[in-house]
Amino acid sequence: MEIERKFLVPAAPDDLGAHPSTAIDQGYLAIDGDGTEVRIRRRDGASTMTVKSGGGRTRAEEELPLDDATFERLWPLTDGRRIEKVRHVIPTDTPGVEIELDTYRGDLDGLVVAEVEFAGEAEADAFEPPAWFGPEVTDDKRYKNQRLAVEGRPDGG
Amino acid sequence: MEIERKFLVPAAPDDLGAHPSTAIDQGYLAIDGDGTEVRIRRRDGASTMTVKSGGGRTRAEEELPLDDATFERLWPLTDGRRIEKVRHVIPTDTPGVEIELDTYRGDLDGLVVAEVEFAGEAEADAFEPPAWFGPEVTDDKRYKNQRLAVEGRPDGG
Repeated sequence: MEIERKFLVPAAPDDLGAHPSTAIDQGYLAIDGDGTEVRIRRRDGASTMTVKSGGGRTRAEEELPLDDATFERLWPLTDGRRIEKVRHVIPTDTPGVEIELDTYRGDLDGLVVAEVEFAGEAEADAFEPPAWFGPEVTDDKRYKNQRLAVEGRPDGG
Repeated sequence: MEIERKFLVPAAPDDLGAHPSTAIDQGYLAIDGDGTEVRIRRRDGASTMTVKSGGGRTRAEEELPLDDATFERLWPLTDGRRIEKVRHVIPTDTPGVEIELDTYRGDLDGLVVAEVEFAGEAEADAFEPPAWFGPEVTDDKRYKNQRLAVEGRPDGG
């Protein structure tokens, strides 16, 4: 099982440019009332479609590659349900634990969110957020990418 | 522009077996609140994904082929949002105008719907439904496949 914690970041660290980064364009084709989403994403020139079921008995996720032409055809259908962000990957003092720092662009410009993935609950509990992390929003559904794409910044910023 | 009229059919014609038919399995991955749908369909052994935008300024539709393995991976994610039907294609007295007669199976067993497509409004208005057609449901949104897949038969049959 994958455990993730999510934090707002008031100001990104000064040495951000020293870490590898990648631009992510992500658009939702449809978000079902039960939370199931179909999204397409382009990252480092590679495009994928991901279907995530909304939960319940059979929570599941499937990903398929898209060629460029197909991505370009589908992208217009995500109008009004998009996020653009730049992701930096930053190591921590704990081996195997990395910070994915997402700096949002476009309509969400100014929003910076850090996500940290852990192998289990114990590791997640033991994690000491760096001083530059802001409030934890792990359980705040308004910061789900799906919601951000449709509703924009929760703080209206 | 494509014009379509849709009718309920109380009893399919006796000579139905004389017309070509094809089995269609159709499942929705997600149906957005704005009506946008992402569906997958298998027909005559060929699988496709179709994205239809819900309407508004940029109504659009895109279709992409799926290989068998991808269809099989995605199909479980359509649980609770599926229709199965057998489609017969029946000619009419008007050249170029055909009846697509959909006989639903599974949860929708017993429902039979005829769809007729026309090149324009004038042709649609001029169409004389055969005696075996029942009430017209062109504007009854409960008979959209998207709604049937989720909500079942409007008449509760």
